[in-house]
Amino acid sequence: MKNNILKSPDGMRSYLPDLAFKFKEIEQRIFDVFKLWGYQPVITPTLEYFDSLTVGMGSRLKKELYKFIDYEGNILALRPEMTAPIARTLAGRLDDLTFPQRLSYSASVFRHGQPQSGKNREIYQVGIELIGEKNALADAEAIIIAIESLINAGVKRFKIDIGHAGFLDGIINQLNLNNREKNKLKAFLVQRDLVGLRNYINNLNPDTNRVLDQLPLLRGDKDVLNLAGELVDNRKSITAIENLKQIYSYLSDYGVEEYINFDLSLIRGLDYYTGVVFEGFTEKLGYTICGGGRYDNLIGQYSGVDLPAIGFAIGVERVRLALEKQGYCFPLCRVDAVIVFNAETSKLALKTARNLREKGLVIISLERKEVDRKLLSFGKSKGASKVISFCPPPEEDKLEIYDLTSNSRETISIKDWEERLWQR
Amino acid sequence: MKNNILKSPDGMRSYLPDLAFKFKEIEQRIFDVFKLWGYQPVITPTLEYFDSLTVGMGSRLKKELYKFIDYEGNILALRPEMTAPIARTLAGRLDDLTFPQRLSYSASVFRHGQPQSGKNREIYQVGIELIGEKNALADAEAIIIAIESLINAGVKRFKIDIGHAGFLDGIINQLNLNNREKNKLKAFLVQRDLVGLRNYINNLNPDTNRVLDQLPLLRGDKDVLNLAGELVDNRKSITAIENLKQIYSYLSDYGVEEYINFDLSLIRGLDYYTGVVFEGFTEKLGYTICGGGRYDNLIGQYSGVDLPAIGFAIGVERVRLALEKQGYCFPLCRVDAVIVFNAETSKLALKTARNLREKGLVIISLERKEVDRKLLSFGKSKGASKVISFCPPPEEDKLEIYDLTSNSRETISIKDWEERLWQR
Repeated sequence: MKNNILKSPDGMRSYLPDLAFKFKEIEQRIFDVFKLWGYQPVITPTLEYFDSLTVGMGSRLKKELYKFIDYEGNILALRPEMTAPIARTLAGRLDDLTFPQRLSYSASVFRHGQPQSGKNREIYQVGIELIGEKNALADAEAIIIAIESLINAGVKRFKIDIGHAGFLDGIINQLNLNNREKNKLKAFLVQRDLVGLRNYINNLNPDTNRVLDQLPLLRGDKDVLNLAGELVDNRKSITAIENLKQIYSYLSDYGVEEYINFDLSLIRGLDYYTGVVFEGFTEKLGYTICGGGRYDNLIGQYSGVDLPAIGFAIGVERVRLALEKQGYCFPLCRVDAVIVFNAETSKLALKTARNLREKGLVIISLERKEVDRKLLSFGKSKGASKVISFCPPPEEDKLEIYDLTSNSRETISIKDWEERLWQR
Repeated sequence: MKNNILKSPDGMRSYLPDLAFKFKEIEQRIFDVFKLWGYQPVITPTLEYFDSLTVGMGSRLKKELYKFIDYEGNILALRPEMTAPIARTLAGRLDDLTFPQRLSYSASVFRHGQPQSGKNREIYQVGIELIGEKNALADAEAIIIAIESLINAGVKRFKIDIGHAGFLDGIINQLNLNNREKNKLKAFLVQRDLVGLRNYINNLNPDTNRVLDQLPLLRGDKDVLNLAGELVDNRKSITAIENLKQIYSYLSDYGVEEYINFDLSLIRGLDYYTGVVFEGFTEKLGYTICGGGRYDNLIGQYSGVDLPAIGFAIGVERVRLALEKQGYCFPLCRVDAVIVFNAETSKLALKTARNLREKGLVIISLERKEVDRKLLSFGKSKGASKVISFCPPPEEDKLEIYDLTSNSRETISIKDWEERLWQR
């Protein structure tokens, strides 16, 4: 195993500053949006009891858990998503909290996933949960925040697909299937295999598949809702369509209709969704960059008291990939200057560096005998525009400034230099 | 086990916004300092191969690892600290990188720890590594950044204890002990059990314990360095003292002497330190709030090529506790206003909310039939100064503003309200 010491486990990777800086930037911009809507951070443990984590979880995601037994014999697992841990946390503190609660998070989640190469098993997510509100405005709020987050992160040409767990549930309930058959049917929907779905349904119950046959057509703008409303005759599906119409009306009032697409065959992999569900995607990326929905029964499965909730998560790495494919230019990770000095001039140089940092400049200090080509190229590699040299010892308070943009050098008194700084 | 579903594993906890907000605030302020010194973020996997993680790790920390076997039969472990994962990452990419590298991180680390109650097993750390510089300036830089980080986070009355792995190594090497005896001796030092240490040494080798007897006296200001220099006669310890004098000279040039305390009995729990080591503490907290040191051989244990390095980590929860004990007041997690409306007035209210958010105000929007006492108290609980009500439907573009500070209410035209906003 010793040859493993340079490796990270499959699907887990390190990000050096060139990429990590972009992660932080994307996260910050999305959090800026969350904050403007009154969302405040929550932190939950990376490890949870297996039994706690899997409340309301579908069998598919359960198989992807990293689980293990701790020193006390408990079965623990790494969280594969943040909604269940947050639901658990709130369920234990219902008496201390006033609702609605608006919570935001930034967290690693872990999914063992399929063995195909390149799939990340540690996933960096940011997201929100709005807990204690059941109305269509709350649904619209989550969708609007997802849209504004992607816009603020710099993503262009994206759409949010909107569906409804109640719409499909209503239809599926009419088919009188057992649980195994229902799960199989949902699996076709999760895989977006509508042909497989039709064949499966035809074999089961050829008379009641009229609506399912039409599912592929129920994608597009708001007219889809009217079409769908005419197709269904069960109360649950009709209520779902009414809910979606109301949500759309709020989205339109807010002015974000252009990002909306309805897709009534949309179903998400987690079993706890009860209402609207949505996913965001860009044209050039083969997978969703965000997803979420309403889950009104999950907290009740922990506490015994139902509490309506909606939330979504955004995949930070997927947003970064989308931005890269769209040719987005990140602002540089800025270093303003490199200050170089030797043992004799350290006092003056360190005080200058401190002074400049107190003015908000990003300064790298280095102890060197002299400024050589290697040092100038180090400065350039950091994006610094200047190297300020205190070696050899400054005569009469003078220092040398190398301009890395123009490749020029000047000698300047420290007093002049400081005045120049103040003018920035 | 079903009664576990509301619990988190021992030593792991959730932080709701009242605390999580403070974590984020502390982290941000410390990162602001890291950035000014040219440090850029790095991200490493939460899980590592056990063999990779334990390169250079002492047997004590090894026992505290969360380890498990993955689906492919590999032994994995949750990282108990960030230095080894960063060393591993760099060791694998030496050819692609220019040095020195200045890296910063914010990460969870995991230590199973003793079973005593209340001890956190998931620890939130921020820290830096400065890799590829061996001089005393780099040592001083790490210590100065630790000091400025604590100051910027708001911590008062703290000291940084400074010691040197080389100083103690030089003395211990003269005692001609076997590895087991050395480890036992170091364990006394880690536990700060200087009486136990003296007894142990007396039994082993009564003639050569003169310096170890003096260790308790080698604590205090810079004069300690002269005292220690006179006590030792081995090259390694003498070089260590020279190194500490040079570091002190830089710290003094920079103007942070007041935070410095020397403690030559200081030894840190990780075995990879080779030079200066340091720990920060405040008077009222029973444990260190930061710690680090120089490790010049660790990267070489991964890559075969030694690369000098120094770094430290700050415990975010411990800083929060220190601030709390010092009576520090965190700025409030600000919500500017709650906007309330009903179905008839949603369009105008949503546009107003959007408008205000675009001006940088934090706005919570709620759909309600009317403004009642419960809603006003919700607004107050969020720290909002205003509730802006669009229900009942505004006549002639009017809205109602409840001032939650003065408990007053006024009716105002939307035009006047917007003008007032612009004046903020």
